[in-house]
Formats: sequence, structure tokens, C-alpha cells
Amino acid sequence: MEIIKEQFEARQNNSKLDFKEIPELKQIEEELMNIVSDINGTVKNMCEHILKAGGKRIRPLLVIYSGLIFGEITPKLLQTAVASELIHMASLIHDDIVDNSDLRRNKPSINSIWGNNFAVLGGDYLFAKAFGILSSKRLNTGMEYMVEAIQSMCVGEIVQAEDRFNCECSMEKYYEKIACKTAILLKCCCQAGAAAQNATQQEIELIGEYGLNLGLAFQITDDILDLCGSSELTGKPKQEDLRQGIISMPVIYLLKNKANHQWVKKVIEERKFDDDTLSKICSAITKTGIMEKCYARVRTHLEKAQGSLDKLPNSYYKEVLSKMADMVYARVN
Amino acid sequence: MEIIKEQFEARQNNSKLDFKEIPELKQIEEELMNIVSDINGTVKNMCEHILKAGGKRIRPLLVIYSGLIFGEITPKLLQTAVASELIHMASLIHDDIVDNSDLRRNKPSINSIWGNNFAVLGGDYLFAKAFGILSSKRLNTGMEYMVEAIQSMCVGEIVQAEDRFNCECSMEKYYEKIACKTAILLKCCCQAGAAAQNATQQEIELIGEYGLNLGLAFQITDDILDLCGSSELTGKPKQEDLRQGIISMPVIYLLKNKANHQWVKKVIEERKFDDDTLSKICSAITKTGIMEKCYARVRTHLEKAQGSLDKLPNSYYKEVLSKMADMVYARVN
Repeated sequence: MEIIKEQFEARQNNSKLDFKEIPELKQIEEELMNIVSDINGTVKNMCEHILKAGGKRIRPLLVIYSGLIFGEITPKLLQTAVASELIHMASLIHDDIVDNSDLRRNKPSINSIWGNNFAVLGGDYLFAKAFGILSSKRLNTGMEYMVEAIQSMCVGEIVQAEDRFNCECSMEKYYEKIACKTAILLKCCCQAGAAAQNATQQEIELIGEYGLNLGLAFQITDDILDLCGSSELTGKPKQEDLRQGIISMPVIYLLKNKANHQWVKKVIEERKFDDDTLSKICSAITKTGIMEKCYARVRTHLEKAQGSLDKLPNSYYKEVLSKMADMVYARVN
Repeated sequence: MEIIKEQFEARQNNSKLDFKEIPELKQIEEELMNIVSDINGTVKNMCEHILKAGGKRIRPLLVIYSGLIFGEITPKLLQTAVASELIHMASLIHDDIVDNSDLRRNKPSINSIWGNNFAVLGGDYLFAKAFGILSSKRLNTGMEYMVEAIQSMCVGEIVQAEDRFNCECSMEKYYEKIACKTAILLKCCCQAGAAAQNATQQEIELIGEYGLNLGLAFQITDDILDLCGSSELTGKPKQEDLRQGIISMPVIYLLKNKANHQWVKKVIEERKFDDDTLSKICSAITKTGIMEKCYARVRTHLEKAQGSLDKLPNSYYKEVLSKMADMVYARVN
């Protein structure tokens, strides 16, 4: 088990290094900087803060590479990519209000600096900016995908909040939540990229399957790391999700385990999350082979993602997307 | 002065009664109900709450009547109207978070029932829904106007928040704030309606001028009522804006008045808003003829609005828009 974990973390660090070399990133960064430089006042300061806080720009890269399978880079494709990152940034700002988070990527969150009231408006401004770009370029299909993604994220966050500390959470419900919260945006980014390049409906569906499975793999990975990863990797306090009552895949497996069901349920329902108890949970997850089960699920989704790519036209960018799976396999946001 | 005020309030009550008879309202209500009935879970409950809390649907009516000047009603026009109300509803939900308001239209606000975290997501969902409607109907021009309106509202709310308790606020800055906060959305509604019916650019500009001046007249009226109107009319506690440090037109005039400048400035800067002091401010506004000055500004904007309508093609709906000025002259939201 420890070996699997080490390989897993090494792979993350490795893919982080590779990532910085991606040339398309420069174009996206420049475009994002241009957009922010056109804004004024406090909205500009908020946007600059979230932009400079970093992030790997996974979503715009997915848009671009998905599009590049079907044709050369165009201003429309680039603008779709930029809009997807603005939407992601807006949703991060609002999520930090929802979760009352003070940190984002190891830096103070927008709400912790400017307060919830300004953070609400900063997020709204970025959502509007994204739709402004999409509408001015007449990217209607891309817009429909982005609308689907935003609505899913809202529903996912609400269902998650309503389901906190619920030990009856099924694996099916867990999948529904992580699809809504995370995977559908990645799916929609891939689809929007392909649609901007006039891919066929079947191609758009295949690239969407890739994005969805990539997103599911990513979120499960993220949930494993929250429980048993280091906080340097996740950029937030260890086991923060569980402390907040979010029941993720490893915990669902643990609750299904007869030897552990009772005491884990008691801990969660009574919200007794001292360090010793959390460490005991992590240890139980490791000892019962749950970590391997979760990794197996991650691999299954990555294989499905690869399977969808295999059915698409041959292209260098299919290889890039394939490599992105390794990167998204790492903890990214 | 008291006579002017009485006439003013009588006219409001009168226009409120007239308003309920507007036939197009039924279509808008039905469409809004259809949209909400397609939603699930807590998002649906939040949307139903805000929908049933009422409101005069000024914005969708402006879209429809502006459009009807240039042609018969179409599904595109109706959908633009519905999207404008969804955007307004979303912005109300978020504004109540920003202002920490417990009441909206004399009913508990979304944030007071479901908390700020759900209210953020409920607003986002409605924004996305509005853009989903506009993009699926390929209403790109309308969408660009709505983007402009949302961005203006965000900037207006932020500038207003930053400028609270600032006794140096100029009339110019006040106008900038009320344009951003209120008038630009009304302008954009009129323009989106005309654009959906393929009006010329000049016609779109004229109807926009009407909407902008209507919006300015509305917000100045609203600000007069906050200070010296009854709370039954405004649906919120009397002088709430001033208590929150929002310096509106009557207060700017009062601060410019030499005899009153010092003590009013002291009250505002030291935030000493007991009932006696607020009543003294209201009385000073009345005695110094400031109320008349504000009403004169309202009339000027309504005349400008009428002037813009006069230059548009003859139509029954120009008369309706002219009558709507009376209605918006009343306190509406």
C-alpha cells in the first residue's frame, strides 16, 4: 500500500513539472491577463488576486486540446478556453463563500480578504465576463455547455451541503455529487472545445466521455488525498472535507465494512474529529485495502477515458490528452 | 411640499392597481412558472420562493413593450423577457447577501431562510438558467446587453459599498452609482427587446435612452422614498439606506446646504442614526426645498425618456411605455 501511495505522489510531482512546459498555457495566461487589465477598481483587484493565485488551467487546456484534435487553433477556440477558466475562477470564488474557506491554493481566499459581500459580486462579474466573451464570439454551443456545467456545479454543491454527515450516503449518490461538482465541467470543456471546431455530434459525445471520466478520476483522487495525502499536496488542512462532514468514496467503503461501520458512523454523526480519531480512520482505510479499491476505481475511469480517446480520429493531441490524464490523476484544482 | 408628496404617493397606488391588468404579464408569469417547475430539489424551492414573493416584472415588460414597437410578439421576444427577470431575480438574491438583508418585498429573503451559502448557489443557478435560455434561442445581442447589465450591477454595488458614509460623494458619482446599480439593466432590457425584433441601431439607442432615464427616475424616486416615504410603500424599514451609509440625492443636496452641512456630516460620519436624528434629517430635507429639487430631477429624466420615445416609430406600445413611466415613477423593485 505504502508503495502505491509513494508511486502515486511521485507521479504527481513529476506531472507537475511537465505541466509547466505546455506552450499553449502562455497564450491562455496572456489572454486572461488582457481581460483582467481591462477591468477597473476593486473587481480588478479581486480578479488579479485569483488569477495570480495560480492553478494549472486544466479546464482551458482541455478545451484547447479537445479542439485541436479537429483542426488548427482559432481565436474562437482560444476564447472558449479563456471563458472556461473565468467560469472556473468564478465558481472557486463562490465555493469559498459556500464553504467559508479562508484559504485557496495556500493563499488567502477572496472572501477572507474582501469579505463575502464583495466576493459574491466578484464571482458574478467573472461569470458575466465569460458569457460576454462567448456571446460576442457567437459561441452558442460552447455557451450551452458552460450553462450546463454551472447549473451542475450549483446542484452538486447544494446536494453535498445537504448530505453532510449523512452516513447512509450511497456510492451512487457519491458519484452523482462528484459528477455535478467537478466532472461535468471537465466534460463540458472538452465538448465546448470540440464544438468550436465543428466536430460531429458523435465525436463531441466521445470527447465528453473522456472529460467526464477524467473528472471522476480526478475527484476520487482528490478525495483520497484529502483523507490520506499531505496538506502540502492538497493546499488545505488534512481531512478538511471529512471534518466538514463530506462523505467521500474511502469513507463510504469504510462504512460498508462490518468491522468498522459502527465506530466510524458514531464519529461522523457525533462530529468527533480529533486528530487521533482522524488518524485512526486513515489507518483503517489503509489496513482494509480500501485505498487499493479506490485507486482501482480511478484506474477504471482513466481506462474509460482512454477508450473514448481511442475511438476519435488520430491526432497528436489525443496523446496530449492521454498525458493530461496523468496530470489530472494528480491533485489539481 | 406635503401636497406634492401626497400626489406622488396617490399616483403610486393608482399605477399599482393599473399594473395588475396588463395582459402580457400572464404570459411572462406562466413562462417563469414553467421554468421553475423543471428545476429539482432545494434550488427549485429557492426559485419558487423568490418567484412567489411577487414583484411587478418591470424588466420583462420593458423587454416586451420595447420589442412590440417593432413587430408582433415572438417566442424570442418572450424568452428575452423571461431571461431578464431571471437575471433580476438572481441579482436580488445576491444583493440580499451583499446587504445582509433579512427582508425582500416584506417577506423573508432567500439568505435569511436558506443561509448565505445556498443563496450564492441559487443566484448562480438563475444566472446560468437565463443565459441558457438566451443561448439556446441564439439571442446573442440580447445576451450581450444582459452581460453589460450584470457587470454594471456588480460594479455599482461595489462602488456603493466602498463609498458608504462618504460625505464627499458628488452628484456625478451618485449618478454613476444609480446608473450602474439600476438604470443600465432597464436600458439593456429595452435594447434587448428592440434587438430581438431587428430594430435599427439608432432605434435601439433611442429605446435605450428611454430605459436609462426611466431607470434613473426610478432610482431617485426610490431614494426619496427611503428617506421620507412610508415603509409600507418601500417594503423595508424607513431610512434603511441612510442607516447603511448610502448617500443618496436628497442627502447630497442637504450636505451642500451651508446651514445643514456640518451637523449632517457629523451624524453620518459618526453613524449616529437614532430615530430623532433621522426624523430631523427628513424634516431638513423638506424645509429646504430639497424634495422639490429631487422631484424636478425625476421629472427631467421622465421628460427625456418621453423625448426618446417621441423619436421612435408610432405605435400603441409607445403609449404603453409612456404609461409605464408613471408606474416606474412609483417605488418598484
